[in-house]
Amino acid sequence: MKQSQTLIPTLKETPAEADVKSHQLLLRAGYIRQNASGIYSFLPLGKKVLQKVENIIREEMNAAGGVEMLMPALQPAELWEESGRWFTYGPELMRMRDRHEREFALGATHEEMITSLLRDEVKSYKRLPLTLYQIQTKYRDEKRPRFGLLRGREFLMKDAYSFHASQESLDEAYDKLFEAYKNIFRRCGLNFRAVLADSGAIGGKDNHEFMVLSEIGEDTIAYSDSSDYAANLEMAAVNKQYDKQSPSGKEKEEVSTPDQKSIEAVADFFGTDKENTVKSMLFIVDEKPVLVLVRGDHEVNEVKVKNAVNGRVAELATEEQAIQYTGVKPGSIGPVGLSEDVTVIADNAVEAMGDIVAGANKEGIHFKYLQAGRDFEVSQYADIRVVVEGDPSPDGVGTIKFARGIEVGHVFKLGTVYSEPMNATILDENGRSNPMIMGCYGIGVSRTLAAMAEQFNDENGLIWPGNIAPYDVHLIAVNMKDEVQAQTAEELYKLLTDYRYDVLLDDRKERAGVKFADSDLMGLPVRITVGKRASEGIVEIKIRSNGESYEVQKEELTDKLQEIFRQLSNE
Amino acid sequence: MKQSQTLIPTLKETPAEADVKSHQLLLRAGYIRQNASGIYSFLPLGKKVLQKVENIIREEMNAAGGVEMLMPALQPAELWEESGRWFTYGPELMRMRDRHEREFALGATHEEMITSLLRDEVKSYKRLPLTLYQIQTKYRDEKRPRFGLLRGREFLMKDAYSFHASQESLDEAYDKLFEAYKNIFRRCGLNFRAVLADSGAIGGKDNHEFMVLSEIGEDTIAYSDSSDYAANLEMAAVNKQYDKQSPSGKEKEEVSTPDQKSIEAVADFFGTDKENTVKSMLFIVDEKPVLVLVRGDHEVNEVKVKNAVNGRVAELATEEQAIQYTGVKPGSIGPVGLSEDVTVIADNAVEAMGDIVAGANKEGIHFKYLQAGRDFEVSQYADIRVVVEGDPSPDGVGTIKFARGIEVGHVFKLGTVYSEPMNATILDENGRSNPMIMGCYGIGVSRTLAAMAEQFNDENGLIWPGNIAPYDVHLIAVNMKDEVQAQTAEELYKLLTDYRYDVLLDDRKERAGVKFADSDLMGLPVRITVGKRASEGIVEIKIRSNGESYEVQKEELTDKLQEIFRQLSNE
Repeated sequence: MKQSQTLIPTLKETPAEADVKSHQLLLRAGYIRQNASGIYSFLPLGKKVLQKVENIIREEMNAAGGVEMLMPALQPAELWEESGRWFTYGPELMRMRDRHEREFALGATHEEMITSLLRDEVKSYKRLPLTLYQIQTKYRDEKRPRFGLLRGREFLMKDAYSFHASQESLDEAYDKLFEAYKNIFRRCGLNFRAVLADSGAIGGKDNHEFMVLSEIGEDTIAYSDSSDYAANLEMAAVNKQYDKQSPSGKEKEEVSTPDQKSIEAVADFFGTDKENTVKSMLFIVDEKPVLVLVRGDHEVNEVKVKNAVNGRVAELATEEQAIQYTGVKPGSIGPVGLSEDVTVIADNAVEAMGDIVAGANKEGIHFKYLQAGRDFEVSQYADIRVVVEGDPSPDGVGTIKFARGIEVGHVFKLGTVYSEPMNATILDENGRSNPMIMGCYGIGVSRTLAAMAEQFNDENGLIWPGNIAPYDVHLIAVNMKDEVQAQTAEELYKLLTDYRYDVLLDDRKERAGVKFADSDLMGLPVRITVGKRASEGIVEIKIRSNGESYEVQKEELTDKLQEIFRQLSNE
Repeated sequence: MKQSQTLIPTLKETPAEADVKSHQLLLRAGYIRQNASGIYSFLPLGKKVLQKVENIIREEMNAAGGVEMLMPALQPAELWEESGRWFTYGPELMRMRDRHEREFALGATHEEMITSLLRDEVKSYKRLPLTLYQIQTKYRDEKRPRFGLLRGREFLMKDAYSFHASQESLDEAYDKLFEAYKNIFRRCGLNFRAVLADSGAIGGKDNHEFMVLSEIGEDTIAYSDSSDYAANLEMAAVNKQYDKQSPSGKEKEEVSTPDQKSIEAVADFFGTDKENTVKSMLFIVDEKPVLVLVRGDHEVNEVKVKNAVNGRVAELATEEQAIQYTGVKPGSIGPVGLSEDVTVIADNAVEAMGDIVAGANKEGIHFKYLQAGRDFEVSQYADIRVVVEGDPSPDGVGTIKFARGIEVGHVFKLGTVYSEPMNATILDENGRSNPMIMGCYGIGVSRTLAAMAEQFNDENGLIWPGNIAPYDVHLIAVNMKDEVQAQTAEELYKLLTDYRYDVLLDDRKERAGVKFADSDLMGLPVRITVGKRASEGIVEIKIRSNGESYEVQKEELTDKLQEIFRQLSNE
């Protein structure tokens, strides 16, 4: 492609509306333009990258047994009423009426539509399993669209849905697609983790988000520094062995601490570390009071608290409830002398503590020299705290680190959450009717592109990996008015195209400086510069990612390129 | 692909809602399903065909200098207000509000959006010409969606827009894209014509619709039986040389014709042919009365009338206006004795007539033995009638025939219709600001698919050309429970896949009759049947389009297939 024949409107200045690197660079390098808040056009370069990502997704989805189809964006409200989401989805679901006043949703996702299709077309277990996917435009009316393509209102998504007659069949598909997702993001060159995620009200443990590690990510991930383990913060287990501290043996002692409101202040007051204090927090789990004890330097993980007592809903007690059950406000609660109505559970770390400083259930008073078992009973020790950096990884390999992540994919065992209310049933071997068992699997396609831009750049612009870059080679004639240069550039353009390189020829009559700056911004893997030495048959090759450059004779160009691309694809 | 792993829900019965062949067969063969009126899902087979059509379009658009991009469907109302179409488009334009009550259109087309983009990014003639295109989902809220994909409300379109600094540059792009369109529809195997269309209010003569000839088409096309010439009915010129008839020389004579209301009745009454009568119709062109004379067997073409007198608007006179200018109601008007205010123009055919029967400007009276020039004056003879079958083709080659057409493409010189009101200007060589000159070029992608289905079928189902078919080969094991057959089928599946054929293997445990009927419905070019003679190493090849079949040894299969596909691609 000749640059004069396409639209690559580069910008010298960083647009004021763009906060993050990917947004800034995709705008500056002429890949995208905003049409309205959270709504973007993909200009020719952006569209090419998008297609490369789409093709990787297609190849891996097909290899994993997926079959491509295409559903419409306009979805009748009736379908969403069947699943109940018409009423629960909120203003993020874009809605409209047609000329006959019939209501439609602009698809934010397609569970309802695919379930209704399969309900109509598949009646027997013999026709399952099926994994269907599409690459299609989705709509979500984000309250605050931001970060360019990372959180838009109209965006491209790959969504897949699998249907099964048995849980084992779902497990098998899930594992296959999990691997496919790893392949996809690996082929995109991304530094990512498959992160265990909370299944919320739906339940089930198989629910993973694929997160690209990035400081602008909106979620915190706990991951192992030496293995594949990764989980959302609230999902990460703590399997730590704590060193048992010996208590001094002194009797518990009340101390007046009228001004010590925070754990830090209390620890300071007692001349000790936060690790020797205990936080006492009252929760109401399914309407019953549960006192939760964690070490002063730890945070309570509410999901774990709920699971520890097999509860459905766990909520921190209100001030009123605190007074009702302990006689004091939340800040003064402690484990000693509580009524038997209150179940006391403690984090494993507390079991290993020696002398404990904790609240005394009296305003402005703390105990010191407390000992669990001697001064108060704990009905259960469990993992109920939030993981911290330095904890051992739950899989036993390495230690936990934290990172921020951009969610680019999600695989999730839905079970019968949609098939049951929508009555999508099949007959089993024995002629019995059962709801289909479902999985769903999403990839934010345009978001993945942005995540790559976020990861692959330097101070001069984008740096695409070879298999994603919109073109392989940026061919630049320094001075198009110089006949030898112009002619050499045209000749090499033809040559390289014949050699199946996808070449962008900068044939514009611009200053060399402009051309080079634009070229760095766009970030194609290899630049070939046809300059003054063209008259000697010499051109320059420069590798965008490492800045290495070579002068070569025209005749050696294709050999050298082959070598360079082989090297780049091995990196 | 194994049929057990994909979704191809065939139907035995023709769905009641489907009126036309393409709709019936695409539903029955499991290519599409309706989700709401005029809104469809493309099931796996449909999606594959769609992709093949898209790829043909991409290749030809790129070869013609087009550059692909992707614009959003959600378009801010403000853009449509700039062009004025927010107010004039009517209920076909789907509209909605976001959570902040901002109004959006769901793009029915993208002139506004692309013009606004180019307005922002291109400031100089040096950056033009540019041809940008996208393959993208469009929305039109048709009052009566019908014929399946042929007139839907959410559909896939390729839309292209070209931008130029001069008319010559537009002409060049138009010609290139015109050729690209011919290539596209030719490669789709369609029987089509590029049809001259009326430019309406926009003007300009370069405006062509690409019509697939089909009896279910909504438009009538006049085309030459021996050349490429084709035009919409109202656009077809008549270049006929009429044989001059000799008048009898008798004086004009008033005859009472009280009950003869139609041309037929008048001709019968006078014992002559309609060709010897003249229809006299009063038009008001730009507020002036024009009497239009055509032969009794011809119809007036209002567009030609308007053009003949260089008018802007031509309308048939009301009864009141007829009485004002001729003294009688429209049915009794004639050319004799009119006031000088009334201009009389006549079709070329009238000039060649001998004795004429015509109205006498008196209720219930006709003249016979009229002679133009002797009994009334004609200020201008011109081509002002509608073409009829049998007329010579205006390009001088062959004669005109009529056909019905399905519009699948449109190329149109827009000029500055959008760039002027939207202020999309560039500076020319002399630093003067001019509006960009534009062309637009559309192809209904999903409609093209349906037009092919309409054209390629027989009583048993669809018959796809090889380059469009979702798979190359339908491989059928007659009895999957027979071990030899199942094994042979698997073996051939692997073999043919290695040979780069795209194979659909019917591995379902269905009766042979069901498999063959489904196979005919789906319409893949070649079927390979693995039946009883598999034990002898013999399988059957059958060509869907002509029904020819061959028994071959497995070892000869790939050679025979190569021969067959070579043959098919030459047809």
